[in-house]
Amino acid sequence: MISPEIERLIELLSKLPGLGPRSARRAVLALIRRRETLLVPLVRTLTETANLIQNCATCGNIDSRNPCSICLDLSRDKTLICVVEDVSDLWALERTHAYKGGYHVLGGTLSALDGVTPEDLRITELVVRANEPEVKEIILATSLTVEGQSTAHYIADRLDGSALSISGLAQGVPVGGELDFLDDGTLSAALKQRQPI
Amino acid sequence: MISPEIERLIELLSKLPGLGPRSARRAVLALIRRRETLLVPLVRTLTETANLIQNCATCGNIDSRNPCSICLDLSRDKTLICVVEDVSDLWALERTHAYKGGYHVLGGTLSALDGVTPEDLRITELVVRANEPEVKEIILATSLTVEGQSTAHYIADRLDGSALSISGLAQGVPVGGELDFLDDGTLSAALKQRQPI
Repeated sequence: MISPEIERLIELLSKLPGLGPRSARRAVLALIRRRETLLVPLVRTLTETANLIQNCATCGNIDSRNPCSICLDLSRDKTLICVVEDVSDLWALERTHAYKGGYHVLGGTLSALDGVTPEDLRITELVVRANEPEVKEIILATSLTVEGQSTAHYIADRLDGSALSISGLAQGVPVGGELDFLDDGTLSAALKQRQPI
Repeated sequence: MISPEIERLIELLSKLPGLGPRSARRAVLALIRRRETLLVPLVRTLTETANLIQNCATCGNIDSRNPCSICLDLSRDKTLICVVEDVSDLWALERTHAYKGGYHVLGGTLSALDGVTPEDLRITELVVRANEPEVKEIILATSLTVEGQSTAHYIADRLDGSALSISGLAQGVPVGGELDFLDDGTLSAALKQRQPI
């Protein structure tokens, strides 16, 4: 006989990606054991998140401000828009500290199988932004999967005829990658796009 | 640039067992995407848990009531006390629906390495409960690890001289277990404790 609050908490936590019923039970016990250092701060932060976090109407990022901090940041290069599938990809690029332009979060990829059409993604919004006079380059940073690349091609087609330069991420050997363990596609792409040293 | 609320949420979630920074980020995105069906109910249930859940002063179980629902349940057999290391073990036994007695949660195992002494566990409370006239049997259901078994032996020593029967879980082949894959210890225990069919 487990108390109904705990049963419900286990059920909700096990809906999170990466947590099953077993790890959700362990998480609940950890939360109850660390009430003051973990449970109470988590309740507070989740409440703030539920109340404050929203999607940026411009780029689709999530933030406590709308437009988001990145769109509002005057120090960022407004001539660049980097198109990503999801907020997690935006976070990955931000962690590199290598990019200082703007973003556009599509909210997924085109997929005939899952019935995702261009209307389900924020593609029209992207075309509108791309036509703003300050924008000079669109970087299509969707995943190198079939869906990611067909989405990138679809967007490139929609932007065709504009004066924008349209680029994609370089393909090649990952840093620390050993040639022996690389797939043939990556290796031949790295060879084809070889760079002078 | 990730909003500070989200950064904090990722940091807190990655403290849960089974979640690292990467899965915490995925969990946060899932929570924000499913605000009404996941985030808001989670905030509500966590708040209830933080406000209501406490340790049962009798058995050490966690519940919204103190004494807990198991201790208060008059239909349960008060002659039996099953001693477990942790609340998660109590939950595991409850899921079997095979046990209808009481429990006693120790809160860990004796461990010279980690400096866990008998005073750190709820052993004195157990000895007091074991001396109550209605109690007839103590089932020592600690893990079959070195620490679990030395804790069980320590408790059996402390209860020595009483009229109680003291038992442990049967050791043997797990249901569905293939002999070929069993360790030698389990197999020899199963042979030694063989049962008439």
